[in-house]
Amino acid sequence: MQLQLVTWPEVESYLTRSQGIVMPIGSTEQHGPNGLVGTDAICAEQVAKGIGDRTGAMVAPTISVGMAQHHMGFPGSMTLRPSTLIAVVRDMVESLAVHGFRRFFFINGHGGNIATLTAAFSEIYAGASLAPASGRPANMPAVRCLLKNWWEAKQVGALSRELYGRAEGSHATPSEVSLTWAAYPEAAKPMTLDPEIAPTGGFTDAADYRRRFPDGRIGSNPGLASVEAGQRLLEAAIVGMAAEYESWIKES
Amino acid sequence: MQLQLVTWPEVESYLTRSQGIVMPIGSTEQHGPNGLVGTDAICAEQVAKGIGDRTGAMVAPTISVGMAQHHMGFPGSMTLRPSTLIAVVRDMVESLAVHGFRRFFFINGHGGNIATLTAAFSEIYAGASLAPASGRPANMPAVRCLLKNWWEAKQVGALSRELYGRAEGSHATPSEVSLTWAAYPEAAKPMTLDPEIAPTGGFTDAADYRRRFPDGRIGSNPGLASVEAGQRLLEAAIVGMAAEYESWIKES
Amino acid sequence: MQLQLVTWPEVESYLTRSQGIVMPIGSTEQHGPNGLVGTDAICAEQVAKGIGDRTGAMVAPTISVGMAQHHMGFPGSMTLRPSTLIAVVRDMVESLAVHGFRRFFFINGHGGNIATLTAAFSEIYAGASLAPASGRPANMPAVRCLLKNWWEAKQVGALSRELYGRAEGSHATPSEVSLTWAAYPEAAKPMTLDPEIAPTGGFTDAADYRRRFPDGRIGSNPGLASVEAGQRLLEAAIVGMAAEYESWIKES
Amino acid sequence: MQLQLVTWPEVESYLTRSQGIVMPIGSTEQHGPNGLVGTDAICAEQVAKGIGDRTGAMVAPTISVGMAQHHMGFPGSMTLRPSTLIAVVRDMVESLAVHGFRRFFFINGHGGNIATLTAAFSEIYAGASLAPASGRPANMPAVRCLLKNWWEAKQVGALSRELYGRAEGSHATPSEVSLTWAAYPEAAKPMTLDPEIAPTGGFTDAADYRRRFPDGRIGSNPGLASVEAGQRLLEAAIVGMAAEYESWIKES
Amino acid sequence: MQLQLVTWPEVESYLTRSQGIVMPIGSTEQHGPNGLVGTDAICAEQVAKGIGDRTGAMVAPTISVGMAQHHMGFPGSMTLRPSTLIAVVRDMVESLAVHGFRRFFFINGHGGNIATLTAAFSEIYAGASLAPASGRPANMPAVRCLLKNWWEAKQVGALSRELYGRAEGSHATPSEVSLTWAAYPEAAKPMTLDPEIAPTGGFTDAADYRRRFPDGRIGSNPGLASVEAGQRLLEAAIVGMAAEYESWIKES
Amino acid sequence: MQLQLVTWPEVESYLTRSQGIVMPIGSTEQHGPNGLVGTDAICAEQVAKGIGDRTGAMVAPTISVGMAQHHMGFPGSMTLRPSTLIAVVRDMVESLAVHGFRRFFFINGHGGNIATLTAAFSEIYAGASLAPASGRPANMPAVRCLLKNWWEAKQVGALSRELYGRAEGSHATPSEVSLTWAAYPEAAKPMTLDPEIAPTGGFTDAADYRRRFPDGRIGSNPGLASVEAGQRLLEAAIVGMAAEYESWIKES
Repeated sequence: MQLQLVTWPEVESYLTRSQGIVMPIGSTEQHGPNGLVGTDAICAEQVAKGIGDRTGAMVAPTISVGMAQHHMGFPGSMTLRPSTLIAVVRDMVESLAVHGFRRFFFINGHGGNIATLTAAFSEIYAGASLAPASGRPANMPAVRCLLKNWWEAKQVGALSRELYGRAEGSHATPSEVSLTWAAYPEAAKPMTLDPEIAPTGGFTDAADYRRRFPDGRIGSNPGLASVEAGQRLLEAAIVGMAAEYESWIKES
Repeated sequence: MQLQLVTWPEVESYLTRSQGIVMPIGSTEQHGPNGLVGTDAICAEQVAKGIGDRTGAMVAPTISVGMAQHHMGFPGSMTLRPSTLIAVVRDMVESLAVHGFRRFFFINGHGGNIATLTAAFSEIYAGASLAPASGRPANMPAVRCLLKNWWEAKQVGALSRELYGRAEGSHATPSEVSLTWAAYPEAAKPMTLDPEIAPTGGFTDAADYRRRFPDGRIGSNPGLASVEAGQRLLEAAIVGMAAEYESWIKES
Repeated sequence: MQLQLVTWPEVESYLTRSQGIVMPIGSTEQHGPNGLVGTDAICAEQVAKGIGDRTGAMVAPTISVGMAQHHMGFPGSMTLRPSTLIAVVRDMVESLAVHGFRRFFFINGHGGNIATLTAAFSEIYAGASLAPASGRPANMPAVRCLLKNWWEAKQVGALSRELYGRAEGSHATPSEVSLTWAAYPEAAKPMTLDPEIAPTGGFTDAADYRRRFPDGRIGSNPGLASVEAGQRLLEAAIVGMAAEYESWIKES
Repeated sequence: MQLQLVTWPEVESYLTRSQGIVMPIGSTEQHGPNGLVGTDAICAEQVAKGIGDRTGAMVAPTISVGMAQHHMGFPGSMTLRPSTLIAVVRDMVESLAVHGFRRFFFINGHGGNIATLTAAFSEIYAGASLAPASGRPANMPAVRCLLKNWWEAKQVGALSRELYGRAEGSHATPSEVSLTWAAYPEAAKPMTLDPEIAPTGGFTDAADYRRRFPDGRIGSNPGLASVEAGQRLLEAAIVGMAAEYESWIKES
Repeated sequence: MQLQLVTWPEVESYLTRSQGIVMPIGSTEQHGPNGLVGTDAICAEQVAKGIGDRTGAMVAPTISVGMAQHHMGFPGSMTLRPSTLIAVVRDMVESLAVHGFRRFFFINGHGGNIATLTAAFSEIYAGASLAPASGRPANMPAVRCLLKNWWEAKQVGALSRELYGRAEGSHATPSEVSLTWAAYPEAAKPMTLDPEIAPTGGFTDAADYRRRFPDGRIGSNPGLASVEAGQRLLEAAIVGMAAEYESWIKES
Repeated sequence: MQLQLVTWPEVESYLTRSQGIVMPIGSTEQHGPNGLVGTDAICAEQVAKGIGDRTGAMVAPTISVGMAQHHMGFPGSMTLRPSTLIAVVRDMVESLAVHGFRRFFFINGHGGNIATLTAAFSEIYAGASLAPASGRPANMPAVRCLLKNWWEAKQVGALSRELYGRAEGSHATPSEVSLTWAAYPEAAKPMTLDPEIAPTGGFTDAADYRRRFPDGRIGSNPGLASVEAGQRLLEAAIVGMAAEYESWIKES
């Protein structure tokens, strides 16, 4: 059930049976020579929709632009400053909390979002934790947020290792590229890359990143990507993350 | 050409022939008893993609959550504070300006965004206008932003009047509802509304809005919406806005 | 009744009979070769005082510096960033709301303020609309803000057309220049301008504006301004806007 | 020479002979039973205009609302949060620095502004002091700001002591009330106060202030105010502060 | 009793008998040729600990980096922007207020902090003063903050004058340098300075400061500093400030 | 070499041979029934000083208050909002970058800081990554930040496992408590805890945390802490982290 594709009375009805919502967040940034700029947003959105279909959970609109300052050396990359992204997440969660949503399950498609998203959760919680000092009631609604990276579903990890082994790497991976091709087969760009496997290592700002990783990839060979692999990976991610969502909603 | 669905080398190549980009911005908010919560984002996205297809323009990812504080009395509505949305637009434009984009054509799907979006443009321009005082060079890149509401294409206005006359109203209009049904026919919810035409008038905050417009509509009868009308309206909007884009890029 | 010229017990007494207040907002920016830098602030202040005299409404101190980044290419122009102006308006409205003021009638003297001021109203309303999520009571005071441009009184439009026709233009108009001369006759600077009527068109940042409009005017011939016309225009604006104020207070 | 009452070419011409500007800043807040809400803004504005007349200095528009949170217990008082006022002062100084103004002489009418205004100066200077780290040139324009309280002109102190002795007090003083009456004789409200001299002491927030000083005054007897005394005090302040301005411009 | 060196049950117990806390705040900045970069933080911390030992007051962790933009021309100096320091002080006070602390006695070691710290107090108070407008209860906890510069204890002034007379100066004074040497005798750097007494005067940003005061001192001769003097000054400051703390806690 | 305990000429000299600096960051928060409120700040500071002694690196003053909103249910805990901590870290790094420092090695003592600190690094890098759009030179200084948790030195992990096994837990661990007792033996509070090992699990805001972990500990038995163990752990942390620092400085 996508929030964008239902009416407000349907949301009202949903809230009588659940306070949970799936929040996809991705990024818009270079993904190497043959990966799509929207890879991280597409992956998060596809997995989130799959969770919604499988569990009946409400799915919020995707946050398509994340924290990707380190990719700004490559055309097409976009970033929000961390301080901006914190404000966005706070406003979105506060908005939904007005209506009674209380459990926010963020499906994340981009490693670069993790720190800022976690900080955003703390910014939200701090509002409640510091409330007694500002005269607000202690019985504020107990909002909870959880961050899950779709690629950390154990089913996904197993499949990635089987399919790509050490060619998986950590940015512009064949797994994520495959997943986006499964969603948009017409955008698939099979390609032989040179070197086959990209270099690895740390980085700081955008100039530093581009110097170290000239075609954008880190440690990966997305030349191995395929639509078929993408379909299997998407299914694995949905199965794994839907289970995570359901058990979290139950226990929390 | 959607930014999300191309690679960074393709963006690099695009920039050798154009500095323009289409930026869809919508909203996530109630649209009456049978309109979708995502109506404004869907409309902006559909029109923007159509412009991209027709003109070859690059299309950025959609800003799905806009400024809709006045709809917060209805479940499912989301809003960014104006100050947050200004920061988002600034970061997105600055990101793309790093790569050489200079003309930002915002296709807007939500009246409530107009003021804040216009203020955001001024916040961006002010960076250049105040630059001499902060020691930055006067020859900063001359970024330009333009805001166009898709429904203001003259072809759309004519068609809306023909189809719905005074039942068009100003929120949850049969035109916008139709357009979303054209994009997602499975989400169409034909319905007879009571009263047929909703009340009209001004409003302030969310409580005030809900008091005045109990089912969310303003002055409209979206009971008249249809997939077929939506297809015609979408086509009209694309034709009209593509022409606007092309003439702006040429002249500016 | 100007807030600056009464005592606090007089304000206390006023609040027992009215919750309305007139808020003049202008700008400090170039107004062509013979218009005053303070034109927009002076116009807003004069009209606001006139409303106060005519209706007994309380009149707040004038916001003299507005959003005028596009005029920064001309000496003497000043601007607040939109984000700053939003904070100013929020603090001013919140301050007066502490005492029980609930209806804020902004008399605006500068087109460049409209978007930011409207966004500021939404920032204020958003505090109430998002309140349930932050644990604040739903019964917050229902503050309402209204923006009126003094030149949009129908009496003013009729008189401007009669006096200046198409020489009115849109910046440094003979009407606004006349009005300031009526207030400060010693500052009148009759002058023949070349070209008589300035060019028209859009603009972005300050450098772009100055390139297009080298003496600062847009589409106007303020060489036609006069003290006498200013007196008539001021009277027309006061009559028109006082009526707007009174009917708004009654209905809202 | 008031910035509001000249044209931009006149400002351009002024800048060829001076980089100085007088910046009046006051407050809008209760001033006891018979003092005007606008006392501090009126005093600053009157003194600033007098400096302009006497020295030929440019005078900026008055900042009428200052930092007066502690007066919020009395109807009519307004305040900007310190963080807002810092942003206002930064934007105003940056705006004028674009045109070449370099010496900002703030004539202050309100003790409560001193800390925030001084902090605002540091916020501005910090932009230059931290510039090397953000890649901006070290040769940024050397903006300088000076804060002077009009009542600290030695001529004013002497006259206050002579006229009022210990009845001067520190808020709603007979001196400042007199000065505003000199400017607006029709607003004079002679009155016998009880107790004649108000209590003294420190305070924190608005509730605390009102508890300690029930009619708003601190240590003063504004029942002694008069138009005549105001004329003498205004003249003294202008003479004293004009001399301060001229010697600062010369030396700095 | 240092907050850092006790357990939370001990804090809980402390709060049953006192709502007061000592908040040391210093700076990290150049202190001339032989003064330590940490001088102001060390002085504030030493005096605050002494107050805690003498009175049993709780002592918060030291704010070591303050507002010192004007010292940025000398290696090792650090600064927070005023807007940042205001946020820090607000968060710290709000945190402690959650637990029931109500009286915050700031022991300050740096003149450059005074304005910003005072503005921070107003930012905190403004939260309470504007509370009625945001729907928060009027009975918020009455937090009070007091700023005391350790060197203004009358015992310290007397001793400084006796020891150093006019060689005390105003930055990198022999008194403060001595006090730090008493705390860290191994860091003492006896030295003959040239000129013996540094120049005096005002300043604006960092470049201006360094131009006027080439070795960092203002008006002082820290060549006269000694461990022994430091021990006497520390004792004097503790005695004086402990008395200030106790009388404030009693009366407020 | 502690920055606080040297003079500015000594910093100037240091910068001729190194651009590295160690930045200790901790937290001020409950650490269970017998752990100190300052545990995390003390640990970070002790380890940082040890690195300085061992390698000759400059050590900045400790950030004592971190992001600990989740501990606010226990008296004495303090927190900065994530947005505040980001501003603090940005200002501190920018300050030191003015002087030529380029490698910032953060020794962290608190898990709750990791996300916000990482986001702060990105906020700093984003300034450089977005610089081309704001007209700033591309050749900005290449600042690099690294975050290391002292307890992740492999020597520390081995020793913790040997000493405490599964009683180590994750908050108020016997290892960190021991380390603080080694630094402040007089503050040691040997104690038998009930239950011996605290519960484990996730948490959100402060109320949620206190409900789940009533005495503050998570999964640990700090009843096993001792001064002797603390001395060994401190030595292990210093050896491990000094090696990390040196190899990072060399390679980066």
